[in-house]
Amino acid sequence: MDRETAEVLVRTGPGTPMGNLMRRYWVPILLSSEIAEPDGPQVRVQILGEKLLAFRDTAGKPGLIDEFCTHRGASLYFGRNEEGGIRCAYHGLKFDRHGTCLEVPSAPGVCDRMRIKAYPCIERAGMVWAYMGPKDRQPAPPEVEWCTLPASHVFVSKRLQESNYLQAMEGGIDTSHVTYVHRYEVDGDPMHQGTKANDYIKADGNVIFEVEKNDFGLTLYGRRNGEPDSYYWRVTQWLFPWFTLIPPFGEHALGGHVWVPIDDETCWAWSINFRPERPLTAEERAHMAAGKGIHCEYEPGTFRPRANKDNDYLIDRRAQKEKRAYSGVFGFAMQDASLQESMGPIQDLGREKLLPTDKAIVMARRMLYDAALGLQQGAEPPALDADKQRVRAAGVLLPREARPQDWAKQHIADGLKQPVYSI
Amino acid sequence: MDRETAEVLVRTGPGTPMGNLMRRYWVPILLSSEIAEPDGPQVRVQILGEKLLAFRDTAGKPGLIDEFCTHRGASLYFGRNEEGGIRCAYHGLKFDRHGTCLEVPSAPGVCDRMRIKAYPCIERAGMVWAYMGPKDRQPAPPEVEWCTLPASHVFVSKRLQESNYLQAMEGGIDTSHVTYVHRYEVDGDPMHQGTKANDYIKADGNVIFEVEKNDFGLTLYGRRNGEPDSYYWRVTQWLFPWFTLIPPFGEHALGGHVWVPIDDETCWAWSINFRPERPLTAEERAHMAAGKGIHCEYEPGTFRPRANKDNDYLIDRRAQKEKRAYSGVFGFAMQDASLQESMGPIQDLGREKLLPTDKAIVMARRMLYDAALGLQQGAEPPALDADKQRVRAAGVLLPREARPQDWAKQHIADGLKQPVYSI
Amino acid sequence: MDRETAEVLVRTGPGTPMGNLMRRYWVPILLSSEIAEPDGPQVRVQILGEKLLAFRDTAGKPGLIDEFCTHRGASLYFGRNEEGGIRCAYHGLKFDRHGTCLEVPSAPGVCDRMRIKAYPCIERAGMVWAYMGPKDRQPAPPEVEWCTLPASHVFVSKRLQESNYLQAMEGGIDTSHVTYVHRYEVDGDPMHQGTKANDYIKADGNVIFEVEKNDFGLTLYGRRNGEPDSYYWRVTQWLFPWFTLIPPFGEHALGGHVWVPIDDETCWAWSINFRPERPLTAEERAHMAAGKGIHCEYEPGTFRPRANKDNDYLIDRRAQKEKRAYSGVFGFAMQDASLQESMGPIQDLGREKLLPTDKAIVMARRMLYDAALGLQQGAEPPALDADKQRVRAAGVLLPREARPQDWAKQHIADGLKQPVYSI
Repeated sequence: MDRETAEVLVRTGPGTPMGNLMRRYWVPILLSSEIAEPDGPQVRVQILGEKLLAFRDTAGKPGLIDEFCTHRGASLYFGRNEEGGIRCAYHGLKFDRHGTCLEVPSAPGVCDRMRIKAYPCIERAGMVWAYMGPKDRQPAPPEVEWCTLPASHVFVSKRLQESNYLQAMEGGIDTSHVTYVHRYEVDGDPMHQGTKANDYIKADGNVIFEVEKNDFGLTLYGRRNGEPDSYYWRVTQWLFPWFTLIPPFGEHALGGHVWVPIDDETCWAWSINFRPERPLTAEERAHMAAGKGIHCEYEPGTFRPRANKDNDYLIDRRAQKEKRAYSGVFGFAMQDASLQESMGPIQDLGREKLLPTDKAIVMARRMLYDAALGLQQGAEPPALDADKQRVRAAGVLLPREARPQDWAKQHIADGLKQPVYSI
Repeated sequence: MDRETAEVLVRTGPGTPMGNLMRRYWVPILLSSEIAEPDGPQVRVQILGEKLLAFRDTAGKPGLIDEFCTHRGASLYFGRNEEGGIRCAYHGLKFDRHGTCLEVPSAPGVCDRMRIKAYPCIERAGMVWAYMGPKDRQPAPPEVEWCTLPASHVFVSKRLQESNYLQAMEGGIDTSHVTYVHRYEVDGDPMHQGTKANDYIKADGNVIFEVEKNDFGLTLYGRRNGEPDSYYWRVTQWLFPWFTLIPPFGEHALGGHVWVPIDDETCWAWSINFRPERPLTAEERAHMAAGKGIHCEYEPGTFRPRANKDNDYLIDRRAQKEKRAYSGVFGFAMQDASLQESMGPIQDLGREKLLPTDKAIVMARRMLYDAALGLQQGAEPPALDADKQRVRAAGVLLPREARPQDWAKQHIADGLKQPVYSI
Repeated sequence: MDRETAEVLVRTGPGTPMGNLMRRYWVPILLSSEIAEPDGPQVRVQILGEKLLAFRDTAGKPGLIDEFCTHRGASLYFGRNEEGGIRCAYHGLKFDRHGTCLEVPSAPGVCDRMRIKAYPCIERAGMVWAYMGPKDRQPAPPEVEWCTLPASHVFVSKRLQESNYLQAMEGGIDTSHVTYVHRYEVDGDPMHQGTKANDYIKADGNVIFEVEKNDFGLTLYGRRNGEPDSYYWRVTQWLFPWFTLIPPFGEHALGGHVWVPIDDETCWAWSINFRPERPLTAEERAHMAAGKGIHCEYEPGTFRPRANKDNDYLIDRRAQKEKRAYSGVFGFAMQDASLQESMGPIQDLGREKLLPTDKAIVMARRMLYDAALGLQQGAEPPALDADKQRVRAAGVLLPREARPQDWAKQHIADGLKQPVYSI
């Protein structure tokens, strides 16, 4: 890939083509629980290269404003979250969640001039989302399935990934790597028990892909041998610009991710499990909270994984030798993150040599690039319409002669019929 | 502010306009106690971007030379502080405090060629000061009041501030912020007890400034309501190029600061308490040494504050909520430093929006800029004359019709009459 | 020195003149013991600015390949060292030690296109060496004396030095500094007992050099007063492009170093003791393994010295004052490293002022520069021929009228006669 194309794909700061594109969607900012209480402690967040401050105001509404005071540039992190807004600790200027300057104690007449940058926020699935784009283009709230469910049905976690969002997200699109780095992980994970899916995956490393370009992004159909007369199909979804939906294993919870740039060298990897039809059990929830499955354990008091690049992801060479961990690293999340972070903070896209199984990655890159450049020339971004976001991932065993596209149209396309937990 | 003006103000390395200006004054380098003993351990210091080595020679005189040996560039920190100079540990070259190379063991004839950079030093107020400017322009020693007192009357500390000197010093000029970030600090500090000053400050947040430009810098008259028939005036002084003098609270010790660039992203914040008329008591001294008042506690073995940006200045959100610490940070010094460091290592002066209460800051910047540019064109810097430095800060309750300028002329102007500890 | 010449000397990455020169020699990569077992854990190494992966394959042969997979650039550190090669954990590509891609599970036909960078390796003296230059120019294995001895006769250690290789290696060429920074070290070291050499060195600080340019590099003859009718000569060797051989003290083991760039701001300082005529005793070996003599102690689990720049090399000012450690730093290795690292990661060669005793350094720089530029113009590098590498260092007491060059020709030149442990 030439350097110019690569730069378009990986740069997401203010004013960049990809940054402009991403700012047209609702952006996951932080967990609602991080700003749990009205007038409670505010939190610094960086998203798409912008340093921001999140808080919950007296009325319980989430706010997202510039971290730094309009006046002298002091951080509002040290300010007071007071009645109806944040007051700067340096000279007492006060701002509400709309960015209005409510008070300049020493100069009452100048409030208008002191407005602060602010982004509208909503809450979905226990997350605060912001709209960081032009005011007149704010889309409807996201309707990816797990955004529309009651809190009881969803578990959400986030972890810091120390790489560009693109190489992180591509791991979510690329199902072919499951056979390798995750090979021994599923054996020990309760979320994968009682299903033959894992056997199929291990038995057939040569997954064959059919990729479907559609309104919201891509649907990937990955075929492996099933029983003698059937194929095991895993149907993965990629939704513009950063959602991936993972096929479930048997009757276990559905899963998905969001990959959100913090800056160009780090991103938030959001991990979501959900059950459309019923609340998660206490056991399921405890399992996820303990960092199992697609979630992880943290360094105390942070969202940085306990296994990270500073400790070589707690690599265990004996476990690797004994085939308990394929790469020596444990946990789905850190198996992916260790490899993706090892590519460098921003993968050198000019040096890679892609393979046929990278077809979905190539298509996603092309669609992102086209959408970013298209926006520059006035074309509206894809999948802004919430209707387009209502799809589902699935794993299914089908007769060898069946087309998975036909099955998908009936069972997991727009309209959200009953959840399919086949295989 | 345009980028060019900002660069002039914040850059202080060798050859910069502001660096040249500052080098025309005596520069505080380190505490005399850091090089306590003749022929004792030498100390690395960086000042105005120059890496230097301070030591006390056999005769007890302080020396300040280039940190690196003229020969191969090895650090003289590993050298031996021997009879009359520092000997490099690598090849035995020896230099005295004047920069003369006393010995090149392997080549006696070449000493002249091996001179090392050296700056003349003096000691005042328990501090070593150096003159780093052109040899023929060395001014008389500084006569800021606390420099002229016996050691018994003065307490001096220094702390590392991780920001440019300018945004640090501006906190010292800007009395209006006292009402905010320091609001609850004075209540608990013995140095502020037994005075009504604090009540006046808390009761009247809308301080009204009159700023007087003069020979040595600026005098700031800050007016707050006092009793029904009086105003409470706080008179703060800023002296070229980096001194600030703080009004006392009642009968408590006078205070001041010096703000000295280490490099462009860090500075030394020197904090001084003094009593012109008598020695500090053991109790006062113990209080200051414990880091109370304008002083601070340190990370062990360093001059870096214990509360620093790596630990969010030990912010206590409960204390903030309970109005025991306005920003959640404790201590005058760290309340200021937390806000000033939060602006970034070098505040982006192009983004700030100044208010009427920033008038003194604007004037000080202008005076520094003009003096730096003026020097480039041959004009002598202001306030080099020690006569100009003999002023004092004060707090005073005056009848509403009185002009504080008149009072100041009688009580705290040049000539150093009896100290005024009013209010 | 002008900036351009300096850049040629210090830059060693791919494509640089000096990097090209060094790649024409066998390069020490890591200790054989770091990849002890066939199919054992692979190790990341960086050499001459290239990030590489070292491993021992199933047949017990050492391999050195690019750290990053050809496909997506994931680190092969997380791969599996399996039958005959390393398998990437991401998508299962497998490479052998020759760089051949053995398998692309998802696309069998494309192996040819997926070759990975690989360098041929040999083992000598318990070290893995690689040839990183053009395939058709691979030289014969190195025959520096300690490379040709049985394992029992040699002890090798390596330590990280946080500076450019040049300023490190120059310490090895420059015998004149022994009188200073190492002055009190020899007294306490068993490797230096029972010899008068140390007395001669301490008594006569004004070493007089004769430097001989020859086929392999430089021979340095350093003269000090011995007995009234004799001189004590120390004969040091520098061999292209990075070997130094140190004169022994009396009957103690011979010593040498190799200085290998990791990148341009760090290098490996290899330290070797050896006895041509007999195995090292258990006592000698224990002494070396404990970090005595030219070796050092480490931070646990690393090759970074325990005494390093973050702890000021554990400087002990009292020991310095009491003349137990000249610079306050203990150990030959760290005495040198502390000074050389203090010059900065890359010494500013434009600022130094050389002395007559730097003659050998000047000549070595010139020879390296000429060889690097010469290679660019098609001239073959010097000392590639193993015959040229068979020289030895020595210390000897000779009558005042004797020429050390004559003695050297008889005793320590090519041909490796019996070892000389004189004085």
